[in-house]
Amino acid sequence: MTRQELIQTIRNKKSYLCIGLDTDLEKIPNWIREEFDDPIYEFNRRIIDATIDLAAAYKPNMAFYESQGSKGWQSLEKTMDYLNGHPLGPVFTIADAKRGDIGNSASHYAKAFFENMHFDSVTVNPYMGHDALQPFITVPGKWAVVLVLTSNPGARDFQLWQPQLPLLLGKLGIMTEQWKRFYELIMEQCLDWGNPENMMFVVGATRPEMIQSIRESAPDHFFLVPGVGTQGGSLQEVSRQAMNSDCGLLINVSRNIIFASTGRDFDQKAREVAHAYQQEMEELLKEKNLV
Amino acid sequence: MTRQELIQTIRNKKSYLCIGLDTDLEKIPNWIREEFDDPIYEFNRRIIDATIDLAAAYKPNMAFYESQGSKGWQSLEKTMDYLNGHPLGPVFTIADAKRGDIGNSASHYAKAFFENMHFDSVTVNPYMGHDALQPFITVPGKWAVVLVLTSNPGARDFQLWQPQLPLLLGKLGIMTEQWKRFYELIMEQCLDWGNPENMMFVVGATRPEMIQSIRESAPDHFFLVPGVGTQGGSLQEVSRQAMNSDCGLLINVSRNIIFASTGRDFDQKAREVAHAYQQEMEELLKEKNLV
Repeated sequence: MTRQELIQTIRNKKSYLCIGLDTDLEKIPNWIREEFDDPIYEFNRRIIDATIDLAAAYKPNMAFYESQGSKGWQSLEKTMDYLNGHPLGPVFTIADAKRGDIGNSASHYAKAFFENMHFDSVTVNPYMGHDALQPFITVPGKWAVVLVLTSNPGARDFQLWQPQLPLLLGKLGIMTEQWKRFYELIMEQCLDWGNPENMMFVVGATRPEMIQSIRESAPDHFFLVPGVGTQGGSLQEVSRQAMNSDCGLLINVSRNIIFASTGRDFDQKAREVAHAYQQEMEELLKEKNLV
Repeated sequence: MTRQELIQTIRNKKSYLCIGLDTDLEKIPNWIREEFDDPIYEFNRRIIDATIDLAAAYKPNMAFYESQGSKGWQSLEKTMDYLNGHPLGPVFTIADAKRGDIGNSASHYAKAFFENMHFDSVTVNPYMGHDALQPFITVPGKWAVVLVLTSNPGARDFQLWQPQLPLLLGKLGIMTEQWKRFYELIMEQCLDWGNPENMMFVVGATRPEMIQSIRESAPDHFFLVPGVGTQGGSLQEVSRQAMNSDCGLLINVSRNIIFASTGRDFDQKAREVAHAYQQEMEELLKEKNLV
């Protein structure tokens, strides 16, 4: 899906909601597990049917499929076939795989997600550098979604790291320039490698104090924003700080939506939660005259 | 497999060779593709039979299995069953997956590799910090193999990065302390989180000028060393600089061994190359009185 098509999808649906298909077999309703051979696929199919008019994107998280072995991989393949052929599509798809490997291996990962399963995008870990990203940004309409500042506690360990000496010099008045944190260096480098048509950035909603300056550095790129919902990030705050004139945001919500209920009507409960997010997003899009 | 068992395996086989099962379907012999329903598994099985007395470890690279979809994942499951039940085992196994995700997802990846496929270890990307590593170092006998300094060209982009100001101050004689590169910060932090019984480090053979100082920082940890063979690293040089009193090395060779020939006798040709490596390793182990 091209950038222009993604923007049109967001305008049509009045939503920049991304639904995370973190389909943990142990958390889906018992009756689905008992009645179906492929409960993960059945669960996903119902969630998709109940929410696809409210969501701009879906993001299956590979960890929950791989933990079921080759059977889980089959559930994922079927889910992607279903999503890509849905009459209420097209919808943007993100393989939340966080891959990152040397060039030859990275090409094989790109093949797995882009060619075999027809994902629009893959989340990519930048630590191994340019050749690990390259295969994900060379096909028109396909995207690398690069981890920049994640929403988990461990983001502090390396992403937020910055040299201490310049801070000290700054306090002494010797140095005035703000010294960059590691995630900023990564993003600046990635801005050289990709462009707003083939690269997005993961920016966690749990660090609202930083999202505004990230938007200043990357005014036109889409951000995939995890951390709203269970992790405590605020949809309003993130949207007001980082929405640009093309929207430029995909806000991911996973467990809050898909595990809203374990009853027979879990899909309708999921729809209710998704609908509340969509309504809030519609208001925020209106504030920017985007719908 | 515990550290002591790994050391014993190396001593028994007089080898610290790790064979990379980068089983690219397009590179395996035509006749295997034509004659078998599961050519990837058949190829692996023959490579394993021909080399298992010469290798301390095997390292399947997930990219080559995932690019074949759920069928590729099945080939991997069968390969692991075969390896784990081999009469000439046990042998150390590494899932070259380079995973790294938030805690809950990381736990599911750990389940996929440790519980379902009985791998001894998984390569892990540290960018997301402590919670991304934790699930891989909590089970006795299971290991996280953390990416520190990789062998690819892109390693320059972020891993080797260091702040420029202290370099400048150093040149002016104002600062004498060597400022750390990013991979050194990562390794130091990981040394706090794991120990030589549950954590190894990936250190590429293509940067021999750095491997010695990495060994000084982590005297007891095992290093998984890619980059010997096709990528140009030297077995002799790496071994002399980084072998410790328990060996402490697993040197990976992939394509040079498994794709030594595309003929009917590809497995015997693979054996010949693996045997040459083993012989060289035996000499290097003797220099250290390890065999």
